Amino acid sequence: MTRYGPQYGPDLTFLGVDRCDLDEPETYAGADVVIVGAPFDGGTSHRPGTRFGPMAIRQTCYLPHDGSRPHLALRVDALQDIRVVDAGDVEMFSGDVERSIGSLEEAVHKVSAVGAVPLVLGGDHTIALPDATGVARHHGFGRVSMLHFDAHADTGDIEFGSLYGHGQPMRRLIESGALRGDRFLQIGLRGYWPGPETLSWMAEQRMRSFEMTEIGARGLDSCLDEAFEIALDDCEGVFLSVDVDVCDPGHAPGTGTPEPGGLSARQLLDSVRRICLELPVVGMDIVEVSPPYDHAEITAFLANRVALEALSGIAARKLGLKHDPAGPLLEDR
Amino acid sequence: MTRYGPQYGPDLTFLGVDRCDLDEPETYAGADVVIVGAPFDGGTSHRPGTRFGPMAIRQTCYLPHDGSRPHLALRVDALQDIRVVDAGDVEMFSGDVERSIGSLEEAVHKVSAVGAVPLVLGGDHTIALPDATGVARHHGFGRVSMLHFDAHADTGDIEFGSLYGHGQPMRRLIESGALRGDRFLQIGLRGYWPGPETLSWMAEQRMRSFEMTEIGARGLDSCLDEAFEIALDDCEGVFLSVDVDVCDPGHAPGTGTPEPGGLSARQLLDSVRRICLELPVVGMDIVEVSPPYDHAEITAFLANRVALEALSGIAARKLGLKHDPAGPLLEDR
Amino acid sequence: MTRYGPQYGPDLTFLGVDRCDLDEPETYAGADVVIVGAPFDGGTSHRPGTRFGPMAIRQTCYLPHDGSRPHLALRVDALQDIRVVDAGDVEMFSGDVERSIGSLEEAVHKVSAVGAVPLVLGGDHTIALPDATGVARHHGFGRVSMLHFDAHADTGDIEFGSLYGHGQPMRRLIESGALRGDRFLQIGLRGYWPGPETLSWMAEQRMRSFEMTEIGARGLDSCLDEAFEIALDDCEGVFLSVDVDVCDPGHAPGTGTPEPGGLSARQLLDSVRRICLELPVVGMDIVEVSPPYDHAEITAFLANRVALEALSGIAARKLGLKHDPAGPLLEDR
Amino acid sequence: MTRYGPQYGPDLTFLGVDRCDLDEPETYAGADVVIVGAPFDGGTSHRPGTRFGPMAIRQTCYLPHDGSRPHLALRVDALQDIRVVDAGDVEMFSGDVERSIGSLEEAVHKVSAVGAVPLVLGGDHTIALPDATGVARHHGFGRVSMLHFDAHADTGDIEFGSLYGHGQPMRRLIESGALRGDRFLQIGLRGYWPGPETLSWMAEQRMRSFEMTEIGARGLDSCLDEAFEIALDDCEGVFLSVDVDVCDPGHAPGTGTPEPGGLSARQLLDSVRRICLELPVVGMDIVEVSPPYDHAEITAFLANRVALEALSGIAARKLGLKHDPAGPLLEDR
Amino acid sequence: MTRYGPQYGPDLTFLGVDRCDLDEPETYAGADVVIVGAPFDGGTSHRPGTRFGPMAIRQTCYLPHDGSRPHLALRVDALQDIRVVDAGDVEMFSGDVERSIGSLEEAVHKVSAVGAVPLVLGGDHTIALPDATGVARHHGFGRVSMLHFDAHADTGDIEFGSLYGHGQPMRRLIESGALRGDRFLQIGLRGYWPGPETLSWMAEQRMRSFEMTEIGARGLDSCLDEAFEIALDDCEGVFLSVDVDVCDPGHAPGTGTPEPGGLSARQLLDSVRRICLELPVVGMDIVEVSPPYDHAEITAFLANRVALEALSGIAARKLGLKHDPAGPLLEDR
Amino acid sequence: MTRYGPQYGPDLTFLGVDRCDLDEPETYAGADVVIVGAPFDGGTSHRPGTRFGPMAIRQTCYLPHDGSRPHLALRVDALQDIRVVDAGDVEMFSGDVERSIGSLEEAVHKVSAVGAVPLVLGGDHTIALPDATGVARHHGFGRVSMLHFDAHADTGDIEFGSLYGHGQPMRRLIESGALRGDRFLQIGLRGYWPGPETLSWMAEQRMRSFEMTEIGARGLDSCLDEAFEIALDDCEGVFLSVDVDVCDPGHAPGTGTPEPGGLSARQLLDSVRRICLELPVVGMDIVEVSPPYDHAEITAFLANRVALEALSGIAARKLGLKHDPAGPLLEDR
Repeated sequence: MTRYGPQYGPDLTFLGVDRCDLDEPETYAGADVVIVGAPFDGGTSHRPGTRFGPMAIRQTCYLPHDGSRPHLALRVDALQDIRVVDAGDVEMFSGDVERSIGSLEEAVHKVSAVGAVPLVLGGDHTIALPDATGVARHHGFGRVSMLHFDAHADTGDIEFGSLYGHGQPMRRLIESGALRGDRFLQIGLRGYWPGPETLSWMAEQRMRSFEMTEIGARGLDSCLDEAFEIALDDCEGVFLSVDVDVCDPGHAPGTGTPEPGGLSARQLLDSVRRICLELPVVGMDIVEVSPPYDHAEITAFLANRVALEALSGIAARKLGLKHDPAGPLLEDR
Repeated sequence: MTRYGPQYGPDLTFLGVDRCDLDEPETYAGADVVIVGAPFDGGTSHRPGTRFGPMAIRQTCYLPHDGSRPHLALRVDALQDIRVVDAGDVEMFSGDVERSIGSLEEAVHKVSAVGAVPLVLGGDHTIALPDATGVARHHGFGRVSMLHFDAHADTGDIEFGSLYGHGQPMRRLIESGALRGDRFLQIGLRGYWPGPETLSWMAEQRMRSFEMTEIGARGLDSCLDEAFEIALDDCEGVFLSVDVDVCDPGHAPGTGTPEPGGLSARQLLDSVRRICLELPVVGMDIVEVSPPYDHAEITAFLANRVALEALSGIAARKLGLKHDPAGPLLEDR
Repeated sequence: MTRYGPQYGPDLTFLGVDRCDLDEPETYAGADVVIVGAPFDGGTSHRPGTRFGPMAIRQTCYLPHDGSRPHLALRVDALQDIRVVDAGDVEMFSGDVERSIGSLEEAVHKVSAVGAVPLVLGGDHTIALPDATGVARHHGFGRVSMLHFDAHADTGDIEFGSLYGHGQPMRRLIESGALRGDRFLQIGLRGYWPGPETLSWMAEQRMRSFEMTEIGARGLDSCLDEAFEIALDDCEGVFLSVDVDVCDPGHAPGTGTPEPGGLSARQLLDSVRRICLELPVVGMDIVEVSPPYDHAEITAFLANRVALEALSGIAARKLGLKHDPAGPLLEDR
Repeated sequence: MTRYGPQYGPDLTFLGVDRCDLDEPETYAGADVVIVGAPFDGGTSHRPGTRFGPMAIRQTCYLPHDGSRPHLALRVDALQDIRVVDAGDVEMFSGDVERSIGSLEEAVHKVSAVGAVPLVLGGDHTIALPDATGVARHHGFGRVSMLHFDAHADTGDIEFGSLYGHGQPMRRLIESGALRGDRFLQIGLRGYWPGPETLSWMAEQRMRSFEMTEIGARGLDSCLDEAFEIALDDCEGVFLSVDVDVCDPGHAPGTGTPEPGGLSARQLLDSVRRICLELPVVGMDIVEVSPPYDHAEITAFLANRVALEALSGIAARKLGLKHDPAGPLLEDR
Repeated sequence: MTRYGPQYGPDLTFLGVDRCDLDEPETYAGADVVIVGAPFDGGTSHRPGTRFGPMAIRQTCYLPHDGSRPHLALRVDALQDIRVVDAGDVEMFSGDVERSIGSLEEAVHKVSAVGAVPLVLGGDHTIALPDATGVARHHGFGRVSMLHFDAHADTGDIEFGSLYGHGQPMRRLIESGALRGDRFLQIGLRGYWPGPETLSWMAEQRMRSFEMTEIGARGLDSCLDEAFEIALDDCEGVFLSVDVDVCDPGHAPGTGTPEPGGLSARQLLDSVRRICLELPVVGMDIVEVSPPYDHAEITAFLANRVALEALSGIAARKLGLKHDPAGPLLEDR
Repeated sequence: MTRYGPQYGPDLTFLGVDRCDLDEPETYAGADVVIVGAPFDGGTSHRPGTRFGPMAIRQTCYLPHDGSRPHLALRVDALQDIRVVDAGDVEMFSGDVERSIGSLEEAVHKVSAVGAVPLVLGGDHTIALPDATGVARHHGFGRVSMLHFDAHADTGDIEFGSLYGHGQPMRRLIESGALRGDRFLQIGLRGYWPGPETLSWMAEQRMRSFEMTEIGARGLDSCLDEAFEIALDDCEGVFLSVDVDVCDPGHAPGTGTPEPGGLSARQLLDSVRRICLELPVVGMDIVEVSPPYDHAEITAFLANRVALEALSGIAARKLGLKHDPAGPLLEDR
């Protein structure tokens, strides 16, 4: 087996699920979801450290690493009820962004090509470019909509002299045609970036960006309803990209470019669950977890739960389970 | 005086209240509340450190340690208006869970036996077993209902080969008959534990568990209303067990098994106040504060305030004070 | 140029805005806002460290320090659209509170005297006394109302034998006549201080203090509406004093006297924006940021954004911009 | 395979060496060294956290986890040149010290019984009792001398009412006859424990304890020379027990009972190398690494290197390599 | 009893020794050493936090707080064999340096006046002025020599416009005549302060300052020998002032102005022991422990041991014990 | 002026020295030393964060940032007595190692070309390649010897598929002919990397590497004597490359690949001083300071002092000052 395994640290898998090797198709044939590590932080514009994100997201959990996680509310065990395997990391040298994203795009495409959902653990947001491109190459350019949770629009043009970095993937994805600007839904933007020129470009692409002020005024669920409707219009799948900095720094301090005033962890988890229950998710990434800046591992715990919430939603959707959010946990009472 | 004093560190009391010695009944005769430290972390399944919880909860406050804490909103000074004394710690060797919980149960029972409310500062949640048993021995098995704030149900059966640990106290309490399953109210559950078998057992006991999804959908106050009604049905007192991990890790990072997506600190404080104002609380514990994982002491500050909020509620209830939450702080305006 | 520059560390300005020198009036003639550092923590009653607050607030931002910050929601660039300059720090020896506040009052008054808004970066809350006095000396004693965000009333009389400290500025301001007690609006109080005697004094002054219980019961916007009405009644300007401990310690751990159960960062940012958009702010301070207790710099990030939110509101108000909170970020869609 | 694997966290091995299962003898037949994790902190008298020691010691290294570590100075690759395998952890519930040490003793004995050297990764120092007993059961009671690096003598009698804990293993070992008191060599003692009674008991056992004052006055190598001579006198093997708190807290902060004024990391590494090169080591443990109190992982890095230094010494001794400490690294020059 | 108790936090004493009240002479009559807390950080020129030094030094120890500490090497129990009592803190408002040092000087003088040794726990080094002055007022101006361990000479003239601060006490002491410049011994100086003018002043006073280069070249013991000779020449007592920053930041990170390249913790402990064994110490302070910057409490542990080493040396000297540094710990062998 | 300024954070200079612009030769004409920031961490193989090294090294000092640092022992003020200017950072995008090192090499060469000493603040050790190449291009390939302080040889060939990274610069420098292998002196190597193949290559190049074992056995000064002799043999200048991980992690925790058992901070400072006093240094870099892993800033303080020690040595050498290490600090006594 030629599996690369983790780039940094010991060889382990997401909460103990089975290993697969992307060079050996039989190891992930029939998988519903394939986890791929993208330990790259060469594209970040400020605090680095997300190279250790895949390792942290895979293992930050206080429960046994036994490949089983029964979801209390949804009553599904995503790691058992559907087939989830872990391909280890793609080798991504942080000093060479172009080679690294090329390698990742190939890996993601391999997963999509067999009909599985790639769940890519970042890494900085640079990786959304190869992630969504790899998916779009299989499902068709322009056939996948994007649900993008982030404090930042990530639609910059050139930074530090480069076309590639964690502030630019969304522009590159629209420019290449991999994704349609008018099927691009952004949730949680706020702060002081980008400037007017970039916002004009975004408007021209007909992107739909829900800034925190609108979310506060209208309510998150109402914004999600609107976003879902756009996402499903003439698209056959959804890519979900979760930058943990969409949460308030109080809930996700371990990240590179924290922007105060974001979602609570509860809001993010609920949103991810709704999306994976209600929409046909065909790819996903979780990015910008930077362990060196985390304390008490709370950001890594959150990202691990974002992954599990997504997997549980995907599993429940596949199994056709019904869920009443207002109902009691225990049936008998 | 044979008082044991704190097991770790210097001899100090909760915010400077008077000392008592559980071996000398006259030292706590007439007390309304007796504080007992339970510095035990031998039962935790993951991050330890709660042995330093009693010390941290007692002293983490920026105000003078003068045995006085006037509550702004309730206009009562619990440490002055009722009699609160601190018995120091029970010796609890973390390497011997059975002996330790035996000692604690005796200590708690002594407090209950003189008509005072034991307020036990943990320690990991293993201690809820001796805490509630000690109270029930006085008030009658099955006569005390449980209000349990936690991310976890704590109804496991055997862990690491032991019947005793921080994931199992609630099962043991129901099995022994100390508490009735159908008067067991759980608030704040979430995540990926326990599994279906345990949930079935819980349903059979007719426990009422409010998972965060239900709380989010219905509102916390509505859930509390329902819980209060059950709690008061054919029971003469309420035991309040507060695991700080019921709060989101952003608000309570210093704990052993943090589960993202919990209550805010504000929600917990308001809930504890309501309970102690509206219900006949006969025992309480505050558990799972782990100082080694705390930063800027924010979890210890929170737990100290949970204790004060409870004491203030108990005091206001005893004094028959009225409180209008929507009214202004200052009367004159 | 005799400019003092920062008292601790290298000479830098708020996000790269231009320097000015308070001893050289031409350097800040025509300024809309002058930033003044007040690196003083000699008045704190518990955890120190706010002496490093001005340095942290000035520079804790992941974007280039280029003197430009386009506000996503308001579509204004406060550092470009109005004139904001940074006067460096006032020398404030923490061991001599009286001399230090004297120097600061002179500096603030110089700014007010040329018609600019002083934005003072603390430092502990002791500085609110010279800050608001310096402003009132220009606008008239009793002519400026106070909007005070804080967990604490800061109306103590004598502490540690001194009339001056971070728990007393609001009493001194009312006693001197600089501010009127019945135009004193406090938002976010909670906890166990001050005691009944001080609350009576506050009531006699006809202060209006919104404790968190009232805010929770009525909603923050409703409380702000009431506060705004009082603030504008027979006053010609508003002083905004933001103690970061008004936020929950989960959102602002880096502070000296954290009190659990506060506002979220989002609530604080929205409130500051509303105030600066809707009211004639004539002075402001941001206090109690204590970097030694901060982690992942989240409190400093928050305070930097409080400053920017205020500046953006001031700029939008000056430019007469309209803002619909429920509207979309991008105009075209 | 019934291998237990790690008790906390994911299943990984020491720097990627092969797994073995103590229940399946063929998996470690022919091994030179078998690594055993002892994740127990129920016996500590102060700061806990050593339950995470085995996991930290196994993986805290910046090099690839590839089962190869060529030693620069000794020119041997211990993980390749001799056979080192990792048995995972022994299940040790921290709340039950007696059951836990029983299980560990059995595991260690299994390793000794096949002629391999057990290298036990703690855990608190309680485990030295089962570690050395398990070895002595194979090599003969009284036939193995002890080289004990520690700030503390660990010869206490009863603590917290228990015979077992991290301050008592050395007394229990001598009392049981597993080890001879007059072949007990202690290096690095200092501080204020134990008291005169215990010191008298130690003297009666004819223990040889090198306190830091003597080491400072005579030099560490001179003390080691003396210790080696005693150790080899009528004994056939040496057990090496390294408590990381033998080092100064500046070099090993992540431990439970740090005592200032200890060895430097360099001194400890050199001593361990000398011992394993010059003496017939038949068992070893590395204890008291407490990750929650570590910063920048420096204590875990040190403990990992202590293990490697020992393994390299054992390998070089087995291979009969010669080593000139004063010679150059590169042969050609 | 009017005892002030600790200024910050709960009322506790150094490792559990008895309390005394400086206003009630009978409470410390016959004491050998009286511990006085000086929680003042208003004089620091950089990182504050030493206000929490007294609390940290008193309690940072993993052993029971039982008023007993048998010294392994010296075989004396300073807390039992001589009379050590703790007077609590002197109220020292950090915002008023002049009033604060006045209060401290009175407290220290009271202790000296009854023939006891004041052991003052700082606080920043500002306090050396009142500490040594209070002692000199009793023993005679110019009759006490100074042994000063520090990275810095602390002979500045005016800083931040003040005569008093942590960089100036040694100049003030010489200027006032309390201490003679030619009986002023400084150990451990290094770095880049003060400048030539101040060094000239120091030379004029005939101070003897051992910079680290000289200590490295000659050996610490040789320098101490020379210093002791000067100290005893026509003086009747020695004041020992230990600034923890004399140690390398690796050994004492929790301090305000760390200067790399200092003594090891072992060197400091040995020096303090020698001084208290060999010289007639009549006063002492331990300063510049800043808990907010400490990690794993290693600086507080060190300072606690500096105090114990001094007390043990004083006790051994009083009892006339002999000590052979090169001898074995246990007598029998 | 087109000066780039710092890549991350505010525009400041090393301790307040004057700015220069490498595009404007007159701004650094006549400079003795030009400081250049190299904020690049794209080449690190493990923990990143050195991108913030230049900022940290420039400003981590508790003294005023006033462009003056009188050296206590050498009695020279390097920032005043010679001309030191700061060119700001070279833009180095961490995601593009080749472009980044190209830009840095040009910058360094510009400095060398005017006869000044470039002092490059890293950044990871990747930068030694452009640093030494830039210097060698001016002084002649093979005409500059290398004094390399490091735990690691940095002579790897290809890592993560790249020729460039922090483990390979020394091989590239020798391969290109910029430096001669037999004038390559390495001090402080230790640990488990590189393997035999690379060591053979190093031996073939006739490198002279002093591993810690040899340094311990022979003494550091003796090793330096030997190294100096080689360095001066048929070379006209020396490049000094200091990787802070040459120090023990206890003294320099804030680095990416800490290797226990290194030099003390004192040893490093003394060595750097000797080198700059005794050898013709023509270029220097200080690398691998990683602020996210630093605590209490001790590594940054150390690196700042390494820079100052070097500058002071260079200044004293230029001024022809004599220095007796064993002499007293103050002349008069």
